Amino acid sequence: MAGSDLTLRPFLWRAANLFPEKEVVSRTHRGRERYTYGAFDDRVNALANALDALGVGPGARVGTLGWNHHRHFEAYYAVPLMGAQLHTVNVQLSDDHTEYIVNDAADDLLLVDPGGPVETLERVWDDLESPRAVVVMDEETPALDVDVSVHAYEDLLADHAGAYGWPDLDESQPAAMCYTSGTTGRPKGVEYTHKMMYAHAMMVMTPAALDVAEGDVVMPVVPMFHVNSWEFPFAATMIGAKQVYPGPSPDAETLVSLIRDEGVTLTAGVPTVWINVLDYLDEHDESVPSLERIVVGGSAAPEAVMRRYEDEYGVVIDHAWGMTETMSIGSVSRPKSTMAGLDSDEIYAKRAKQGLLSPGLEMKVVDAEAGERVPWDGESAGELYVRGATVTRAYYDRPEANAEEFEDGWLKTGDIVTVDGDGYIDVVDRAKDVIKSGGEWISSIELENALMGHDAVAEAAVVAVDHAKWRERPVAYAVRAAGEDVTGAKLREFLADDFPTWWLPDNVVFVESVPKTATGKFDKKRLREETDDPDLVWTPGK
Amino acid sequence: MAGSDLTLRPFLWRAANLFPEKEVVSRTHRGRERYTYGAFDDRVNALANALDALGVGPGARVGTLGWNHHRHFEAYYAVPLMGAQLHTVNVQLSDDHTEYIVNDAADDLLLVDPGGPVETLERVWDDLESPRAVVVMDEETPALDVDVSVHAYEDLLADHAGAYGWPDLDESQPAAMCYTSGTTGRPKGVEYTHKMMYAHAMMVMTPAALDVAEGDVVMPVVPMFHVNSWEFPFAATMIGAKQVYPGPSPDAETLVSLIRDEGVTLTAGVPTVWINVLDYLDEHDESVPSLERIVVGGSAAPEAVMRRYEDEYGVVIDHAWGMTETMSIGSVSRPKSTMAGLDSDEIYAKRAKQGLLSPGLEMKVVDAEAGERVPWDGESAGELYVRGATVTRAYYDRPEANAEEFEDGWLKTGDIVTVDGDGYIDVVDRAKDVIKSGGEWISSIELENALMGHDAVAEAAVVAVDHAKWRERPVAYAVRAAGEDVTGAKLREFLADDFPTWWLPDNVVFVESVPKTATGKFDKKRLREETDDPDLVWTPGK
Repeated sequence: MAGSDLTLRPFLWRAANLFPEKEVVSRTHRGRERYTYGAFDDRVNALANALDALGVGPGARVGTLGWNHHRHFEAYYAVPLMGAQLHTVNVQLSDDHTEYIVNDAADDLLLVDPGGPVETLERVWDDLESPRAVVVMDEETPALDVDVSVHAYEDLLADHAGAYGWPDLDESQPAAMCYTSGTTGRPKGVEYTHKMMYAHAMMVMTPAALDVAEGDVVMPVVPMFHVNSWEFPFAATMIGAKQVYPGPSPDAETLVSLIRDEGVTLTAGVPTVWINVLDYLDEHDESVPSLERIVVGGSAAPEAVMRRYEDEYGVVIDHAWGMTETMSIGSVSRPKSTMAGLDSDEIYAKRAKQGLLSPGLEMKVVDAEAGERVPWDGESAGELYVRGATVTRAYYDRPEANAEEFEDGWLKTGDIVTVDGDGYIDVVDRAKDVIKSGGEWISSIELENALMGHDAVAEAAVVAVDHAKWRERPVAYAVRAAGEDVTGAKLREFLADDFPTWWLPDNVVFVESVPKTATGKFDKKRLREETDDPDLVWTPGK
Repeated sequence: MAGSDLTLRPFLWRAANLFPEKEVVSRTHRGRERYTYGAFDDRVNALANALDALGVGPGARVGTLGWNHHRHFEAYYAVPLMGAQLHTVNVQLSDDHTEYIVNDAADDLLLVDPGGPVETLERVWDDLESPRAVVVMDEETPALDVDVSVHAYEDLLADHAGAYGWPDLDESQPAAMCYTSGTTGRPKGVEYTHKMMYAHAMMVMTPAALDVAEGDVVMPVVPMFHVNSWEFPFAATMIGAKQVYPGPSPDAETLVSLIRDEGVTLTAGVPTVWINVLDYLDEHDESVPSLERIVVGGSAAPEAVMRRYEDEYGVVIDHAWGMTETMSIGSVSRPKSTMAGLDSDEIYAKRAKQGLLSPGLEMKVVDAEAGERVPWDGESAGELYVRGATVTRAYYDRPEANAEEFEDGWLKTGDIVTVDGDGYIDVVDRAKDVIKSGGEWISSIELENALMGHDAVAEAAVVAVDHAKWRERPVAYAVRAAGEDVTGAKLREFLADDFPTWWLPDNVVFVESVPKTATGKFDKKRLREETDDPDLVWTPGK
């Protein structure tokens, strides 16, 4: 009765057979390269032959430390399709975390970019327990002081050309694995089966999610080590779209030139990238006429940035929300067709949210303390719970975390949200960052966004500090913009326009920079630890 | 690790919760009705309560004999989501086939439309073995001479309002079932699991297949008893599109008024429907400004019809191909973005084919006699084999058919196709209709399409007749258009412009009408049986 198992094989098949002439463009440290899906297919087959020769068999785990380029893209297919598992490691982690993650996953072989990632590998090598071989994703091998065989990627492919006989796989076979950034405790691994990858990439393609079409030219700027680059390498391949991989640490100039030269229509990444690109466009009086949409996730893009992209460059920014545990994209914010009559402010109020839950998912919003669901009124906040075929139901080898983060088949996302009457999710805080003062919630994110809307503030993070009477009070850490000398009192006055008095931070501490996690988010855990100073909060009579 | 099972529950959840205000419009024999997805959700819950009260439990099979309307749409959700199986029976079958199919599936309960379907039920009732209750999809019950309880649908819903607690289902649970039209032998049942339904509806939504968006207004004219109305009731619900169900036997006037009144943007059905609508538009000087796309399947639309829709009414016809065994849509024909430079004739040459295989599928084209794959050169013909998550791997309870129709995980579609260098499938014949003359294939479909392109021919079917020397020779059966008296010799001359001499039918037999199957296709099996006359073929010297 049932059809074949849901695996990634048809993704490669469709691009290789129906779009063999369409292009993949890749920027590496050596320059820009290009080939067709036909050539891509040949190289994916050769890579599988090579990995096979190196002892990678079904169930093996292949770690990667790499940026967004064609070789990494080839590994995205060769490894899962041969029945092994692709474990993408964030190249921007601390050495400690890199070591922990590679050991926890027990990676059998590592594919590593030249440059920074190879240097990281050398530093942590003595503490790694499992890798039996290293492949450097380049034409040649640097002198590398490790005690296993080291291969140049291109040598391997040249030596192992020819068709690989892709096996029929079980859909419950793990295809990929990513670790969460670990803002609390040790990083946690999330495994993705073939079935989950298939279901999520299909969902990403639909008009309700990212709406990827064959005529699009897709440039995933979100790193390939961040939840499979939000699944673009799978969705775009299946649909037959031209793809552009922007390589190691692309700066704004690089991104703009790739967009212009290659006719990119759709791209994706965190807000910082697109703020830099906007500045670059302004300063250099450049334009990006082919570009239609930017999908922004990780955190929210400022509304002013969204408006300027649309008004000045004709580019729409689509907010998206997701987590490692939801395989990236779990919601996208676009106005409904029924909102055609709304004015620009009302539309942007919707676009600024995280939007509508993606097809295949279900959600509820829970006030954990009260033990009940909160209404969808755009005001009441609670923790977002989600479930569905593309939501993991367990971490890799972490039973204690499973007990905490899942409940009756639901993932407790840790995001505090409101949902409005139209069903739009708005993330107002992380559960662990929320400030509970006098029994009421204060949103650290709303205060931060407001502070960063002040011209004199470059960055701001707001955390809770213990308070005898109110239990917790907000304190802001702010970085002044260059040449500015704004005071804490002025900033409190500024906030008082939009927030009730009891929301205003008791203190504003000016710092040189706000500490960040490996994924570029404010490291509030560290802030809280480093600044656990009762004098920071204002006490009546003191 | 793995996510939740892939079931249809999130399809209902998303429409009910994120688009509760959007409309479903339904034409019944009583007139046009409309409600919202919110009300739809309430009624689906009530229907599940009612079916539960009638003894329908997990694993039960609920047969339907109904047209496209809101009650049938409600059954599409209530039955699978409660863990039972929806078996849609073609209301245009002969009594014999209806009886055979209901007995073969052992339907526990029947949901039946008033009018023709109720009359069919009365005629065959004494031969039915399994149904324990009948529900008439109407406000009241006709006097019905059956020996089980008979209920009016609306009475049941009124008596069973309230939320139904949808269970967590196993994705391998059968959700639906359809029978193939059975042009050879007895009809064969195909069961669809929840996972298959999920995967196919998601695929249908993608821009590579039907590209269904939230802003679309979708009117499925293809009957709900034809392979789940090509999955529109699932794809359109998940995406939150307004839906319009055109009711029993809609004529061209009805369809045009629904399109105009409801702002339909996307519709679907067999070519005959759209040829009638085109005639109606021409005769009444009407237009359909909201309509953007018509998906045509079942058989090919004449190119002239496609051109006139686009040129005169701004409506694009997308050819699609599929089978009961592939859950309907398996390919769609649209030009690739890389074909932007082609001229109109070249574009229509692509559009006239069945197009590119849909995401998630793989195919090969096989010359069964030679036992090898045929090249994708647009010339070489062979049988299309497909496989994938949305392709069944077995018929219901028909082991002998399974041995014949499947091979190493591939479905042998029975369609003889060519595939061109761009990957576009062109169905040139059905394997069992193909004519093998002197060792070479002659396409009956190409000859038929050419004959029907002649002004004096209303219908034409071409079949093989045995021949001593050439083994088989083509013979045409043609229906003259009103007032025409064209001869067979003239038609052979006409065909000689486009086909080699040895392709020309040895004889043209003029008939009053070409016999048809229950799904409206030419019944060539019957033609061959009825006309097995060696005198029809031309023999040298005779």
